[in-house]
Amino acid sequence: MKLSELGEEALIKRLAEQGFIAKSGSGLIVGIGDDAAVLPGPDGMYTLVTTDMLTERIDYLPEWITPYELGWKCVAVSISDIAAMGGLPTWTFPSIGLKPDTEVESVDELYRGMAECARRFGSEIAGGDTNSVKGDDTFSITQLGQVEPDKIMLRSGAKIGDRILVTGHLGDSRSGLELLLKYGTEEARRKFAHLVESHVIPMPRVQEARAAVGTGAVHAMMDLSDGLGADLPKLCKASGVGAVIYADKLPISDELRRAADMLDMDATQLAASGGEDFELLMAVDPAAVDSVILACGSTTEIGEIVDGVIQMSLSDGTRQSLTSGWEHFAQ
Amino acid sequence: MKLSELGEEALIKRLAEQGFIAKSGSGLIVGIGDDAAVLPGPDGMYTLVTTDMLTERIDYLPEWITPYELGWKCVAVSISDIAAMGGLPTWTFPSIGLKPDTEVESVDELYRGMAECARRFGSEIAGGDTNSVKGDDTFSITQLGQVEPDKIMLRSGAKIGDRILVTGHLGDSRSGLELLLKYGTEEARRKFAHLVESHVIPMPRVQEARAAVGTGAVHAMMDLSDGLGADLPKLCKASGVGAVIYADKLPISDELRRAADMLDMDATQLAASGGEDFELLMAVDPAAVDSVILACGSTTEIGEIVDGVIQMSLSDGTRQSLTSGWEHFAQ
Repeated sequence: MKLSELGEEALIKRLAEQGFIAKSGSGLIVGIGDDAAVLPGPDGMYTLVTTDMLTERIDYLPEWITPYELGWKCVAVSISDIAAMGGLPTWTFPSIGLKPDTEVESVDELYRGMAECARRFGSEIAGGDTNSVKGDDTFSITQLGQVEPDKIMLRSGAKIGDRILVTGHLGDSRSGLELLLKYGTEEARRKFAHLVESHVIPMPRVQEARAAVGTGAVHAMMDLSDGLGADLPKLCKASGVGAVIYADKLPISDELRRAADMLDMDATQLAASGGEDFELLMAVDPAAVDSVILACGSTTEIGEIVDGVIQMSLSDGTRQSLTSGWEHFAQ
Repeated sequence: MKLSELGEEALIKRLAEQGFIAKSGSGLIVGIGDDAAVLPGPDGMYTLVTTDMLTERIDYLPEWITPYELGWKCVAVSISDIAAMGGLPTWTFPSIGLKPDTEVESVDELYRGMAECARRFGSEIAGGDTNSVKGDDTFSITQLGQVEPDKIMLRSGAKIGDRILVTGHLGDSRSGLELLLKYGTEEARRKFAHLVESHVIPMPRVQEARAAVGTGAVHAMMDLSDGLGADLPKLCKASGVGAVIYADKLPISDELRRAADMLDMDATQLAASGGEDFELLMAVDPAAVDSVILACGSTTEIGEIVDGVIQMSLSDGTRQSLTSGWEHFAQ
């Protein structure tokens, strides 16, 4: 069988079943299956470790993104995983493969983007590796973070009756990508600066996550990297629950609505299935929804944790399954 | 200017000078420039972090190495960095990019190799990332380790008069590569099994490093990943010293001598400049050379730390500069 037939989730399950990947316990506080691994850290804190790879032609096209933006995005993606665990980013380790004919000035810009993103969220580049590649440029960022043991957020704590909240808007990043595809970088950026920016220079929700965790009312959390349709099932599976999402409650920006018209796409669909928003998905104590929204700022209640399957409820009362998001290997 | 004109060392210096990379201090005990970064760890220990990327067609050709061996080698390369710091490997995070048409069975073998190498040296796979790539398969391993603060080994501690020791044999891995290039995998493996094995399934010197550090007589240490000719200057530069290497003392295996004849290459040259041996290079108190050799096992005194430049002393008494080893980007 080929990887493309198996898919990423089944691959990881298969590798875990063969005993290649450590289970939680015996030194590893939380292993594979959450946004970051959790290890014992200094001063009674937990250390968080996450790693993400971005590759040219799979994750981006160089004509769409500046080196500075690419550096920022590589680091932001991993910092978002630390935020999703309720943690604070500490140290960033970029392992980078570049073509030998890359201009040094564009490497400066790449690192400036990485360093500025890291610092913006309290981290610094502390090491890494640089390599030459013959083919596509490749960026693998390992991000460390720390979190107090009583503040750690997992995917597995959602309870039936919890309300489902998301920060910011959904679908902006995906629509930015679609605009780049359809109009090219110059026109897309001129017409829809914010949407393209959402795609190329995402803002991980570190402060929002810390504020949410501080309320004590968040039972489960993760970041939306593959899209609500792909990520919500992961949270539900980890928690052993189902969910109902209300389509008309999805936070959709005015710009996304305008873009959806021009793209001849459905804004709700983009919001429900678009990846790389890097917003927070939370399951929250129903009695404390207002206090979480107050603490986080721009945050919307979009549904409820239920006993059963995962469905999207449309405005006419009918229910349908959530459109799935990004699936590695299956392109 | 292109990366290929600048080179890896100058690139890192350039990025550091622009302030993109954290300096040692303020939470980062040792930053860029050693085999691993050093951070505060749990229980009064230091945490070590190292990351290495291997890419198809740059670091290996798939026809030369089995998926199992490739998995092993990816992890071994990073574990060797932990050993070089005097540490013990703890957790392994592989970030992997594979072509979608990769057979799942070969991914099993890849992970079996990674997991077995990790476990052989006390580590376990605790997370990671899997991605699809359009071009070359890519492997970025982040390896964590731990070390007692009083046992940490840096590149910077070498003193004038120290003796230079290396574990094992030098040049075996490089000759294995040359044999694969010249004869192809089947013939090379049949004729020179050990040399090819040195190249495809290297053994990091974790135990030897711990034994050496235990003597209290090792002042500086690193692993030989780019070859003696490229790595010794790094240790000397970090320590602000020079060195003399005695060509006739380089530990050269009988198999390497035989292979050098067939390859029409010079065995001493292969030993002095060949990369990927992953042996330990140590600067040792001259009064304690015997006790370090006794503690480590197969270890050879090959030279001396001096005030001045780095030279190789030939058997006729003349001196020449050390042939440099592997340089990224400059191929």
